[in-house]
Amino acid sequence: MNLLEKLDAAAAARKAMLPEGVGAFGIPIEEVYSATEARIGERRVILLGTNNYLGLTFAPECIQAAHDALDAEGTGTTGSRMANGSYYGHRALEREFAEFYGYCAGIVFTTGYQANLGTISGLVSRGDTVLIDSDSHASIYDGCILSGAEIIRFKHNDMIDMEKRLRRLGNRTENTLIIVEGIYSMLGDQAPLAEIVDLKNKYNCTLLLDEAHSIGVLGETGQGLVEKTGLQNEVDFITGTFSKSLCSIGGFCVSNHPQLDQLRYLSHPYIFTASPSPATIASTRAALVLLREGKALRRQLWKNCTQLYDHLKKAGYTLGPEPGPVIAAILDNPKQALQIWQSLLENNIYVNLILPPAAPDGKSLVRCSVNAAHSTEQISYVGETFAKLHRQILDADA
Amino acid sequence: MNLLEKLDAAAAARKAMLPEGVGAFGIPIEEVYSATEARIGERRVILLGTNNYLGLTFAPECIQAAHDALDAEGTGTTGSRMANGSYYGHRALEREFAEFYGYCAGIVFTTGYQANLGTISGLVSRGDTVLIDSDSHASIYDGCILSGAEIIRFKHNDMIDMEKRLRRLGNRTENTLIIVEGIYSMLGDQAPLAEIVDLKNKYNCTLLLDEAHSIGVLGETGQGLVEKTGLQNEVDFITGTFSKSLCSIGGFCVSNHPQLDQLRYLSHPYIFTASPSPATIASTRAALVLLREGKALRRQLWKNCTQLYDHLKKAGYTLGPEPGPVIAAILDNPKQALQIWQSLLENNIYVNLILPPAAPDGKSLVRCSVNAAHSTEQISYVGETFAKLHRQILDADA
Repeated sequence: MNLLEKLDAAAAARKAMLPEGVGAFGIPIEEVYSATEARIGERRVILLGTNNYLGLTFAPECIQAAHDALDAEGTGTTGSRMANGSYYGHRALEREFAEFYGYCAGIVFTTGYQANLGTISGLVSRGDTVLIDSDSHASIYDGCILSGAEIIRFKHNDMIDMEKRLRRLGNRTENTLIIVEGIYSMLGDQAPLAEIVDLKNKYNCTLLLDEAHSIGVLGETGQGLVEKTGLQNEVDFITGTFSKSLCSIGGFCVSNHPQLDQLRYLSHPYIFTASPSPATIASTRAALVLLREGKALRRQLWKNCTQLYDHLKKAGYTLGPEPGPVIAAILDNPKQALQIWQSLLENNIYVNLILPPAAPDGKSLVRCSVNAAHSTEQISYVGETFAKLHRQILDADA
Repeated sequence: MNLLEKLDAAAAARKAMLPEGVGAFGIPIEEVYSATEARIGERRVILLGTNNYLGLTFAPECIQAAHDALDAEGTGTTGSRMANGSYYGHRALEREFAEFYGYCAGIVFTTGYQANLGTISGLVSRGDTVLIDSDSHASIYDGCILSGAEIIRFKHNDMIDMEKRLRRLGNRTENTLIIVEGIYSMLGDQAPLAEIVDLKNKYNCTLLLDEAHSIGVLGETGQGLVEKTGLQNEVDFITGTFSKSLCSIGGFCVSNHPQLDQLRYLSHPYIFTASPSPATIASTRAALVLLREGKALRRQLWKNCTQLYDHLKKAGYTLGPEPGPVIAAILDNPKQALQIWQSLLENNIYVNLILPPAAPDGKSLVRCSVNAAHSTEQISYVGETFAKLHRQILDADA
């Protein structure tokens, strides 16, 4: 079987699993009206499957900053950070991220995916070990593969399993990087950070925390889980993305270890990629200010999260263990999940469908992402529609 | 030695090799005046180390398209292409790339680095083989590592060595992906594509051509080396970047194999990253139109390339084998290269310094990137300055 035939075989396998699945992934968004509404086909839908947690995609401050940067600095830098791509804004944003976390060092990457790839492959290499949660995001897995370090997984948020694996590592723990996430993308649950920090200290490891889904969402000023738990002095490296609460494209790593700066000379995903466009940097800088000052936005976001979580729970859905901006209804099988997803769309609600193997433990998920711009009416309508579909589809199946 | 101590050791090793090297990498660009001029410190410099080959960073059509998209669609999509990140523009740009090459399929990635990572890791996996040029870009290496395929390198542009390795592969050639580049980034030379195609056909492999540095530069309409050689029907997959001639951020893969579409379901760097921002897509679409119609720009670019190449050659520099937008002066050692690089900057000329191990075969390079917006006067001044420095620094050393 040559390379093209292998792709044909993959397509056939996918179609066999999900014959009706055409169109569920990469659905065309024809027009975007606001942070919460768009057109799909001829439908005006509520966007309830984006990572726009603070609802800032159309924030006037961010749009204006991007306009100004476009005019002043052009459409792109046409160079990597190591060559001609370190403009004033790139360096300023790095300082602003470091200062936000109260750390001494920050690096900006061109995507969030590359922030994890670049940080992990810069920190560890062949001979080292990475100890990662089994629900880790693909960018963490790929960073680990790229690094050449040995990859050991522990059961999702299971501290007993984590310690068992640390014990087995013996004196290799000194060269072990533990990687966890502030909020996990599939079920929206948070890492037990205090216990992880205890184990990290007990076994003398290094700890990387990915705040991709938690920056802007958790903590008084929106730093993420590290701020909610007050553990800023215990986490070695924090990564995150610009493409969720910060509404642009890119990623960062911050640390209180000045050694972070060495990644600029070691990390392929940092060195061998063009730097973010000036408009992207400018809108991200403006968004970071809004995020830090966004206490009211976070209050509204959490009000929306709790409202929807409670509504779905009451309607009878199996959900992740705690409310958050990611609320996933766990269905029994792909067919049910697809049916709920399609029916929601017919009711003008866009959410994410996640089928095996993308979801953990072979689960099928209908995943909602709540944001601060959703109105109480929108959330109520979504909750009621979910409840109606539970009666129509799931209760009928039972 | 723990992970932080390893970073300290890497820093010490780097400093020992290049004590004066501080500031040569990631030099701060304080202000950008145009496609050819910027401020570094208090100097107004000629930018001769960017990948802005057609000089379109401030093209009014591209700037305006980006402004319009920002207002209409916001600062970011806050979602991957597989979720809510497939706007009209993303799909249109994919069709436009496919149509540009006369192929049936196109995919857009969020960075050029991820275009290579995503295409390679989607096409091959454990059990397959990649046969790559020893001068391949880091994104090609990293894509190969991520894929799990066996990596075999042949000597740069050496067809005898390439065939030797193909013969050794026996019947594994059917599952072999050959990867070459239209223009190589270090010395600016082109792949011998006709001979590579002959070998690909003889041994029944699949061929991927990376046109990152050649799109916009080679061929009547700027397709790249594939157009210059007329081999569109012989190359299986073409990747490229938006961050050079197209002046934004992102990358693409096009193919006449409809199977390309399967990468949307298989490729982590495509699935697990936010889609490009609307403004980026809009400016890239406008730039692609200018690129296709840019015959006069290409003529001017090549006039500039030839003028500088001839000038440096006459001045006594050792150069890559042929003129092109990348013109690298090959120096005897890092110290000489750093001295030339610094002296150029003191003469208000910004170029790239490339030291071992970044350059192939332990070379030290002072690399120029010429663009269509450089005036004849700028190129003459650069040529004369290089000649003066050859007399002052290199002839004095000899």
